Amino acid sequence: MNWTRHHLLDIESLNAEEIQLVLSTARAFKAVGERAIKKVPALRGKTVVNLFVEPSTRTRTSFELAAIRLSADVINFSTEASSFKKGETLRDTARNLEALNADVIIIRHSSAGAPHFLARFLRASVINAGDGAHEHPTQALLDAFTILEKKGRIAGLNVTILGDILYSRVARSDIWALTKLGAKVTLCGPPTLVPRVFEAMGCRVTHNLEEAIADADIINLLRIQHERQRKTMFPSLHEYTSLYGLNRARLAQTKPDVVLMHPGPINRGVEIDSETADGERSVILEQVTNGLAVRMAVLFLINGGQSPEETAAV
Amino acid sequence: MNWTRHHLLDIESLNAEEIQLVLSTARAFKAVGERAIKKVPALRGKTVVNLFVEPSTRTRTSFELAAIRLSADVINFSTEASSFKKGETLRDTARNLEALNADVIIIRHSSAGAPHFLARFLRASVINAGDGAHEHPTQALLDAFTILEKKGRIAGLNVTILGDILYSRVARSDIWALTKLGAKVTLCGPPTLVPRVFEAMGCRVTHNLEEAIADADIINLLRIQHERQRKTMFPSLHEYTSLYGLNRARLAQTKPDVVLMHPGPINRGVEIDSETADGERSVILEQVTNGLAVRMAVLFLINGGQSPEETAAV
Amino acid sequence: MNWTRHHLLDIESLNAEEIQLVLSTARAFKAVGERAIKKVPALRGKTVVNLFVEPSTRTRTSFELAAIRLSADVINFSTEASSFKKGETLRDTARNLEALNADVIIIRHSSAGAPHFLARFLRASVINAGDGAHEHPTQALLDAFTILEKKGRIAGLNVTILGDILYSRVARSDIWALTKLGAKVTLCGPPTLVPRVFEAMGCRVTHNLEEAIADADIINLLRIQHERQRKTMFPSLHEYTSLYGLNRARLAQTKPDVVLMHPGPINRGVEIDSETADGERSVILEQVTNGLAVRMAVLFLINGGQSPEETAAV
Repeated sequence: MNWTRHHLLDIESLNAEEIQLVLSTARAFKAVGERAIKKVPALRGKTVVNLFVEPSTRTRTSFELAAIRLSADVINFSTEASSFKKGETLRDTARNLEALNADVIIIRHSSAGAPHFLARFLRASVINAGDGAHEHPTQALLDAFTILEKKGRIAGLNVTILGDILYSRVARSDIWALTKLGAKVTLCGPPTLVPRVFEAMGCRVTHNLEEAIADADIINLLRIQHERQRKTMFPSLHEYTSLYGLNRARLAQTKPDVVLMHPGPINRGVEIDSETADGERSVILEQVTNGLAVRMAVLFLINGGQSPEETAAV
Repeated sequence: MNWTRHHLLDIESLNAEEIQLVLSTARAFKAVGERAIKKVPALRGKTVVNLFVEPSTRTRTSFELAAIRLSADVINFSTEASSFKKGETLRDTARNLEALNADVIIIRHSSAGAPHFLARFLRASVINAGDGAHEHPTQALLDAFTILEKKGRIAGLNVTILGDILYSRVARSDIWALTKLGAKVTLCGPPTLVPRVFEAMGCRVTHNLEEAIADADIINLLRIQHERQRKTMFPSLHEYTSLYGLNRARLAQTKPDVVLMHPGPINRGVEIDSETADGERSVILEQVTNGLAVRMAVLFLINGGQSPEETAAV
Repeated sequence: MNWTRHHLLDIESLNAEEIQLVLSTARAFKAVGERAIKKVPALRGKTVVNLFVEPSTRTRTSFELAAIRLSADVINFSTEASSFKKGETLRDTARNLEALNADVIIIRHSSAGAPHFLARFLRASVINAGDGAHEHPTQALLDAFTILEKKGRIAGLNVTILGDILYSRVARSDIWALTKLGAKVTLCGPPTLVPRVFEAMGCRVTHNLEEAIADADIINLLRIQHERQRKTMFPSLHEYTSLYGLNRARLAQTKPDVVLMHPGPINRGVEIDSETADGERSVILEQVTNGLAVRMAVLFLINGGQSPEETAAV
């Protein structure tokens, strides 16, 4: 199949074939990152704008480097110094960036739906780099890529997502991607953060850690936003860690070949202890490497790219 | 004619032929922005420094992208993290940047005359990206470019500049450029912001909106800096809008082919209402696109470029 | 000899031959900065990360431009917006950057030893861009380069370093480099800032300015961090200037061909007066230019480069 979409706004609207096309394209681009010359000319002369209204050094850097390795020109539009202070609307800012002949606008925004809003009136391609608690599609694609790489398949696997599901755009995008690809998804955490309403998305919901991890092929830990949630969502950070934190003892209760994932940055000693985070089952750093490959694939496909394998080094 | 200047400090010292050379050069570079590969090798291996002492994401981004599309290397020198905090002088900062073999230093500064000061001792080319309330030459060049593109000529046109003239570097540069090119310039706004002293620059000054817009071929709206001026320069924002804001009713009193311009960012509902800003007479977003072309032209000419038409894609 | 090191962590562990190799390599790269096309393809497709945990626009810009002129791709990792706010460790941040297939991580950090810490677990090359009061190796290399360029030799020269030695990483790196290359180093300043313990590094220590400058071939002035030290380390800024500030009268007491250096930014009127800083003996701006050449050399050698002379223009 060929890629036909002009934007990447969410995982919800993609079908399994589209997701698989991104993953197979990303495989070719992962190889580019391992070459002596980590660069291909695919997007030479294209302009990519990083419009990060919510700060994020990691994701922005990953997109920036993905664009650079495709030989695109990248502009980072900082909101710190931007016109938002002067009261300009998001719509006007985006249209001004597009007027610079931008081909792609990558947006992160604290409001759910901001990328979809932009896509309604922009000719440039819009990529959602995280919108509120809604979706973070490239994170789900890199998680799926990593699972496929480690397990050889996704269909039929038991994937447990552990932690703050309610406020997590990563959780939502992961659930869409993994269920579309045939995985069985279990959500686990305190009842305040993992309400039963998620069962409507086709997931099993449990508040019992032992039950959630016993048959898991993959455990995906989400970051506890303890700065914000500590006071309201659970009695104490210590209690969260004692009930849901992953450590050596709990790892002993999992399948021997379980794979541990985390979108980062990790809170060492909160949702995972250091020994487990750095252990042989953890693929946290490989997720970072795969994120770059997946973002190259998305940028490539959205700009009409067809065969990454034929893309010679610059 | 050939371009002979090493710096672009203001419009005041340019003659009409020089302005026209920039505009015709910009026409060729505008076409570059419409290609699949939006890049030419003209300034390959040149170093351009954006020294923005006064923050401005829009203008900096436009210059940055202009330099990138000419294949120059660009350094953004942020004043946030800079040595100014340590008490270094502007002179020392600029000479240190030049010592990095910079070919061009683009400066925005809150003090009028800062670019001229640098030009007195730097070997690198200096481009004024806005100095206090003095001049903003590339804005005037893009305004002239846009008028020429829309109307086919500038000489003999009636151009009305509306709003805060007194504190506006855009107004001063526009007045110089447009009168040199033969337009008849009318300035309009409250008496506190549009004093009669501007008649000495060859403009008509009026405080009556109807009179200012009736025969205008172009209306250039300036941003009301209402954060600062509201309390001191006019009784209220509401009063400004009711007396001078552009809207559908007032547009009906203009020539049917009037062109509406604004340097951005716009205050929707203050100097212009949304319907008018987004209407078919507005060329506000085209000004942004043209700004990139004009800045490419300036960078090209100042570095000794001759024929942009012969500049092949990279 | 060939360069064999994977990291550049300090000057202390280098031998004289290694230092001389950097200097001779830098000579070739200085010529690149004087070409019309200031760029070579040596590091095309390599990824260089500037990880500046302590802000520094000058040094970061110098490294960034050095990498760009070698055709590397550069990512600036700002700590302002970074994950450090979320409590991530330096180790995790560095490993995440490395997971983006970074080839080189350039680190500045307020803690002495941070680069050595990273080098223990990273596969990427680590370059120390200044760690606390410990070392700033590329500053010492550019100082040695400048001395060699001006004097034709380093061995046997009398080099006086004047000012805040105790808290200066520049002083420590300079002392290591210059004594390894055979210079005789004198340290001078107030007893609180120049303790006798530095004699153990092979230096002469004096608190008498006349004695320190009388036979100096080179005087290297360090910046007085008067914001911090004024109250604690010496009675007043005025007293420092009157006892140790360099000015015309004191310059008359030096050798006629003495060379004046300063790592910048200078405090005009404190450690040096303006006339002397801008005078013909000052090579302060040449140091900036040489810093770029030295950093290109370090990046080139650390990535396995051999003969910069054979590196054609891009």
